[in-house]
Amino acid sequence: MPRSLIVQKFGGSSVANPERIKRVAQRVVDTKRQGHEVVVVVSALGDTTDELLALAEQISQNPPERELDMLMATGEQVSVALLAMAIEELGERAISFTGAQVGILTDGTHTKAKLIDIRAARIREELGKGRVVIVAGFQGITMNHEITTLGRGGSDLTAVALAKALQAKVCEIFTDVEGVFTADPRIVPTARKLDTISFDEMLEMASLGAQVMQARSIFVAKRFNVDIHVRSSFTSREGTMITQAVKSMEETVVSGVTLQKDEAKVTIRDVPDKPGMAAQIFRELAQKDVNVDMIIQNVSREGATDVSFTVVKSDLPATLRVARSAAQRIGAGEVTTDEGVAKVSVVGIGMRSHSGVAAKMFETMARERINIEMISTSEIKVSCIVRKAHAERAVRTIHQAFGLHKKK
Amino acid sequence: MPRSLIVQKFGGSSVANPERIKRVAQRVVDTKRQGHEVVVVVSALGDTTDELLALAEQISQNPPERELDMLMATGEQVSVALLAMAIEELGERAISFTGAQVGILTDGTHTKAKLIDIRAARIREELGKGRVVIVAGFQGITMNHEITTLGRGGSDLTAVALAKALQAKVCEIFTDVEGVFTADPRIVPTARKLDTISFDEMLEMASLGAQVMQARSIFVAKRFNVDIHVRSSFTSREGTMITQAVKSMEETVVSGVTLQKDEAKVTIRDVPDKPGMAAQIFRELAQKDVNVDMIIQNVSREGATDVSFTVVKSDLPATLRVARSAAQRIGAGEVTTDEGVAKVSVVGIGMRSHSGVAAKMFETMARERINIEMISTSEIKVSCIVRKAHAERAVRTIHQAFGLHKKK
Repeated sequence: MPRSLIVQKFGGSSVANPERIKRVAQRVVDTKRQGHEVVVVVSALGDTTDELLALAEQISQNPPERELDMLMATGEQVSVALLAMAIEELGERAISFTGAQVGILTDGTHTKAKLIDIRAARIREELGKGRVVIVAGFQGITMNHEITTLGRGGSDLTAVALAKALQAKVCEIFTDVEGVFTADPRIVPTARKLDTISFDEMLEMASLGAQVMQARSIFVAKRFNVDIHVRSSFTSREGTMITQAVKSMEETVVSGVTLQKDEAKVTIRDVPDKPGMAAQIFRELAQKDVNVDMIIQNVSREGATDVSFTVVKSDLPATLRVARSAAQRIGAGEVTTDEGVAKVSVVGIGMRSHSGVAAKMFETMARERINIEMISTSEIKVSCIVRKAHAERAVRTIHQAFGLHKKK
Repeated sequence: MPRSLIVQKFGGSSVANPERIKRVAQRVVDTKRQGHEVVVVVSALGDTTDELLALAEQISQNPPERELDMLMATGEQVSVALLAMAIEELGERAISFTGAQVGILTDGTHTKAKLIDIRAARIREELGKGRVVIVAGFQGITMNHEITTLGRGGSDLTAVALAKALQAKVCEIFTDVEGVFTADPRIVPTARKLDTISFDEMLEMASLGAQVMQARSIFVAKRFNVDIHVRSSFTSREGTMITQAVKSMEETVVSGVTLQKDEAKVTIRDVPDKPGMAAQIFRELAQKDVNVDMIIQNVSREGATDVSFTVVKSDLPATLRVARSAAQRIGAGEVTTDEGVAKVSVVGIGMRSHSGVAAKMFETMARERINIEMISTSEIKVSCIVRKAHAERAVRTIHQAFGLHKKK
């Protein structure tokens, strides 16, 4: 297997128009001419996906998901053909493929199919002929030749899975940011780009609101140990390497601070203080695919407690339906919501060996007089729910307190 | 094999926007509810094909044809998915397919592939489940899984070939005209829609400028005896049936008058009057794929002749290159072009048994003082080259002279 194979993935904004497609082509050609074999994964051009969805909506409010996939898959097919043309125009040989053509095999769950296997023989054959191979991201095919799409973050997943199948040296994810930062630079001006981050930290960061990559692709990369290089489409600077092992012996304790503003807090008042009452509510929410994040119970008066939990705002309508009917059934009180909250988290693999991270975070907020309403922790993260109005200040202060602005 | 299977083909203007797609869906559903099995072939939405080509042109002036096919094939894939959604919205079950998915097998001549075979098993299976089957027109797949397109008139060809493969009762071609007319109604206000026309006549009409259908699809329909019903997408009136046998015992002598304005006349002066001189010129033109239509030789002076011939205007640059180099080599004189000509033709299967059609046509033009510059005939047509300025008047007069305005 060649060791110099690189998979490069370009998102929709990187190929939004012919000029940008040409720039991507140049970047691919440069990589090829440095002596690498290159497999490129592309998303649909700019807003294509939204435009296709808008067309479908004009025809049906509830279109069959199989037909949605048939429709959406055309977006990436356009991109790969245009990119192949642009690369050929620069004098390198290129060939484009749909997911179906290179055997990206999925299950039949339309609009959010799961990858089963990649049969990369055709890709290897074309690489062997000295061609750049361009693969439509986000799409696959079932055993029964049905066209499927992989859902959100699908193109990243295609790239990571191809990198695994082809034993690529690295999977480069090109995006409109320069890499993974210690915090959102729009909130924390002193935020620094990380040179490396572990899969575990990146998984936490992704699920805590860092929008660089979806957790799903990172999970696959971790599982198959595929190094991911997240970097900018607009500069040639190195980005952030997401990898199994962190190089430095002296591990950084905390890698980043994240902020999530799309959470809402739901409170069910006066839940009878009997065993199984809360469990019943959360079981029903789970059945409706509502992902409950943090939970606290406060004893409010004798024989009853208030139960609060957070969910993402988009799940709020479903959550309220379930919570209100459950509350009535178990004899609880009213159900209230609070959208004025936000979640601030610190993430760091170093927490495993260094204690005191949570304490330092709480102290920092106390000093700033920011009240912590809820807390949750994992092995490598601490999250606090605070008032949304104070959230950005909390992120800046914590970033400073952990010395994240200083070059390690 | 079910005898009530109908193939319906809708062109790009019939599915140009969501409203029109819904109208097409209603039409398909009506046909289904009349008890037919329905297979629908659709072209790309409105101007999609041109828009995709414009994108490609911004990237490359000479894109690889394989990649052009990859790009263009997305147009029809969008159409079939949207039409399936629209039909499901009306309460009938529908399923869309790409050319690849239903095994429309072609050779590997990208952008103008030739149909090899249709493996219709999947279509039959879905029809058996009571579904309307929607197939992307214009596209196919090679044995090596390469996506191909069939070139101009490709969607009609898909429809006719599917009708043959599925032994359909009829292949309905929906278009923006009401059927095949005795002449272009924009030129001849008294032109009548024909109820039936034979394959042979339609073949002549198509190659003589009637733009209802490409000769290629009619040729396949004739070969496999597939009845074609050309009708309007905008009304429910019957259109024109193109079929093997013409019903009436008393055959119509002439079925239509056509006009072609895209011809140019090329004259090579003073060609040495030796055997093989003209042949050499036409052989070279044939090698360059230039289709020469009519040819006349006029003896201009002793030992030399003027050779004139017509070609379609788009072939003029290539024609002039060949003609000028050949003229020089054989010692002929200058090569001149004349774009002020047009071709007026009468077509009718009845000419086979009725003499005097050509004579009547010539007399009519003589009476109108329209000079005939060149003449060509086949078993079922007579064509004359006249000055373009007089061509429409010629068509009207001939239409009248053969009584085509009168209902038979």
